Amino acid sequence: MKVAKFGGSSLSNAEQIKKVSRIIQNDPAIRIVVVSAPGVRFPEDIKVTDLLIDLYRCQSNGEDVQKPLQLILDRYRDIITDLDLDESLVETFEKTLLTYLDTIKDPKRLEDALKSSGEDFNAQVMSQYLTSIGNPSKYVSPKEAGIIVSDEPGNARLLSESYEKIAQLRDEEELLIVPGFFGYSKAGDIVTFSRGGSDITGAILASGVDADVYENYTDVSYIYSAHPGIIKNPHAIHELTYKEMRELAYSGFGIFHDEALEPVYKHRIPVMVRNTNRPDIEGTMIVSTREIDANTPVTGIAGDDGFISISIEKYLLNREVGFTRRLLQIFDDFGVSIEHIPTGIDNISVIIRQQKLDESGVSLDTILNKIKEVLEPEELEVEENLSLIMVVGEGMREGVGVLNTATEALSQSDINIRMINQGASEVSMTFTIQSTQEEKALKTLYNAYFNK
Amino acid sequence: MKVAKFGGSSLSNAEQIKKVSRIIQNDPAIRIVVVSAPGVRFPEDIKVTDLLIDLYRCQSNGEDVQKPLQLILDRYRDIITDLDLDESLVETFEKTLLTYLDTIKDPKRLEDALKSSGEDFNAQVMSQYLTSIGNPSKYVSPKEAGIIVSDEPGNARLLSESYEKIAQLRDEEELLIVPGFFGYSKAGDIVTFSRGGSDITGAILASGVDADVYENYTDVSYIYSAHPGIIKNPHAIHELTYKEMRELAYSGFGIFHDEALEPVYKHRIPVMVRNTNRPDIEGTMIVSTREIDANTPVTGIAGDDGFISISIEKYLLNREVGFTRRLLQIFDDFGVSIEHIPTGIDNISVIIRQQKLDESGVSLDTILNKIKEVLEPEELEVEENLSLIMVVGEGMREGVGVLNTATEALSQSDINIRMINQGASEVSMTFTIQSTQEEKALKTLYNAYFNK
Repeated sequence: MKVAKFGGSSLSNAEQIKKVSRIIQNDPAIRIVVVSAPGVRFPEDIKVTDLLIDLYRCQSNGEDVQKPLQLILDRYRDIITDLDLDESLVETFEKTLLTYLDTIKDPKRLEDALKSSGEDFNAQVMSQYLTSIGNPSKYVSPKEAGIIVSDEPGNARLLSESYEKIAQLRDEEELLIVPGFFGYSKAGDIVTFSRGGSDITGAILASGVDADVYENYTDVSYIYSAHPGIIKNPHAIHELTYKEMRELAYSGFGIFHDEALEPVYKHRIPVMVRNTNRPDIEGTMIVSTREIDANTPVTGIAGDDGFISISIEKYLLNREVGFTRRLLQIFDDFGVSIEHIPTGIDNISVIIRQQKLDESGVSLDTILNKIKEVLEPEELEVEENLSLIMVVGEGMREGVGVLNTATEALSQSDINIRMINQGASEVSMTFTIQSTQEEKALKTLYNAYFNK
Repeated sequence: MKVAKFGGSSLSNAEQIKKVSRIIQNDPAIRIVVVSAPGVRFPEDIKVTDLLIDLYRCQSNGEDVQKPLQLILDRYRDIITDLDLDESLVETFEKTLLTYLDTIKDPKRLEDALKSSGEDFNAQVMSQYLTSIGNPSKYVSPKEAGIIVSDEPGNARLLSESYEKIAQLRDEEELLIVPGFFGYSKAGDIVTFSRGGSDITGAILASGVDADVYENYTDVSYIYSAHPGIIKNPHAIHELTYKEMRELAYSGFGIFHDEALEPVYKHRIPVMVRNTNRPDIEGTMIVSTREIDANTPVTGIAGDDGFISISIEKYLLNREVGFTRRLLQIFDDFGVSIEHIPTGIDNISVIIRQQKLDESGVSLDTILNKIKEVLEPEELEVEENLSLIMVVGEGMREGVGVLNTATEALSQSDINIRMINQGASEVSMTFTIQSTQEEKALKTLYNAYFNK
């Protein structure tokens, strides 16, 4: 059996919902469908979730809620009309939203309840439409499905006890339509996952029912071996491992929400990336292990900017037991997570993301002063505007010359490698370079590995 | 002015002492001479320090001390006779050793006092001989010189207050002969530096008197760009920076005791490596900064074996704030210092020296179990018998292609690089490989950089 999740762009209007329905009708193996809220229909459009957030904003600022409320209901009314469904559904949605606005006083809970409605309403629409075209289906709320989560508004985590109830969904005979993005706390409150969380719902259900595959439908046909915005027509990846996906996702391959795939990863359930608009294409399969083709050791190349390196030098540094640990403690204490730690003999660098520094609210100077105070370095150097370039591939551990291809290409393009990192996993190599050279580096590496 | 230190092989017998004396006579800039104990004269010989350690061993085991005592006195008697000095000096030495054996009850203090005698007696011999050939010189004990150290037997550290008194040695008109390897505690006890500590004495005095150069005489003419045991006739290095020296010293360039150069490094005093047997050769100069020749970006290549990597994998590892710090804490708690920490996205490796693990008395299994318990990794992999290969050179930060030369050479020689580490200092790159490939890797890298 399959669990299929459809993203916001796949369900943005009636036409898209019809496409999705055809996919479901044509594949009886799909037994559970997870839906997102309607996404954008055209570039300047606003997605329903953002309209709901606006509704919450108006309510909490004491502004008039009618305008955003009507915009939301209009979106669903258009869909419902175009699908020839009973318009009373819109009234039900209106009543639900008004009840939330009237009765939920805790702002965080209200925000979560309103935000969850985008997916919840769309699941109801989807279920009614499928039934109306002769494909009986049942709307199942996350509560009925058994998705019980921790009570952290906006950042719910599945409680492991949920899996027992979720497993029972396997026995349902009807096609099940489940809204993504939220679960229920033990006390019965709606709690959403972090943003992009419909992927999480799909992954939870796929592992809970031990699906043969988790199909994730969006508007792209494949995961590509490089970013199509930088490399024209990059190679499509037909199969990659979770490990490769994680390495690529780290640096800008934003197909999945970072934590979304953890449940399927743990249960070793393959994930298939598919395109709602091109159901004929098989897409990219994400698997636990795969066969390596020695001719294509590299699976993908990705880059990300916004990194800072902080380098410390001190004579006999590597004789001081605990030096590194004390250095990391400083970052820990300030709540700034560390990306990499390249080490020399008497020097060590810490690479952090500018964004994580900003989020911590701590200034770079504060951290530098603390380092000076605690570790008394002889030299302390900061380099900003750095990019990390990652070359990723399970086949890298087989081929001796993979690294050499990269360094030769970068050298010939006069790209100055500030740092290199290749860990024991050997599924990736990371090059730190100046951000101004990122695009050039990606192009030169892509050509070296894929256009030889 | 110069401070010159002569190693054990430079002072192993009368003939060597005469050579040293000629060097001193020919260079009036040498104002302070630091001497080691007599070293080995031929391959199977035992150096005086080891005879002294044997004397200590006999005493503490309640065995007869006469045999080792006579062996020691014989060594000095031969030297004194051959130098035509007054044999009463041997009696003085015997009296000194017997007094130590009779009066010092604390075993650690006795060991230190006995061990220090090798240098102390040799300084007295040297001073008398120089004076006898018309070159007046004065034996100065470390106490008179002002070398006051921490009271840690076998591991003395200079107290910074010492420098005030040491500076006064500048005003001495006579040539001063100072025994290396030990200082005096505030309470007046002899305390030795860690092994190889004559280098430390020389460095302390050179910085204390603000010498123009610290000449370090041994039996090699240069620091070489690779180990002569592996590469036939490697290039001699004429100038290298402290930083380069430290990086090379880390992996087997055992010319200096690791901590020995810290005082001169801090005071930016150049160190000259010279050969007692070839005083015509200028040797290798170790400096704070030097001009870079773009044609020779690499200064030296070194390798060292006996490393272990412990690799951890866990999905979303890099999202866990403090994961790395907690990992290092485990090694800290067991007293095992860490060499490198290559990181991927969801994996991290820790590279340690087998020797440091052995010294800690902790078994690898104990550490692995603690890691499993604290960090719950999904995979935990250990690789033993690894070598680190270091390519070192200040010029590396200028040249884009330096790395590429290494990876190409290693790739062509089918050497599998397990890990790479290039820090922000860019004075070195480290390749982790299997120890069975170490010699091949060193040869191939040497050829790539030096025989192009």
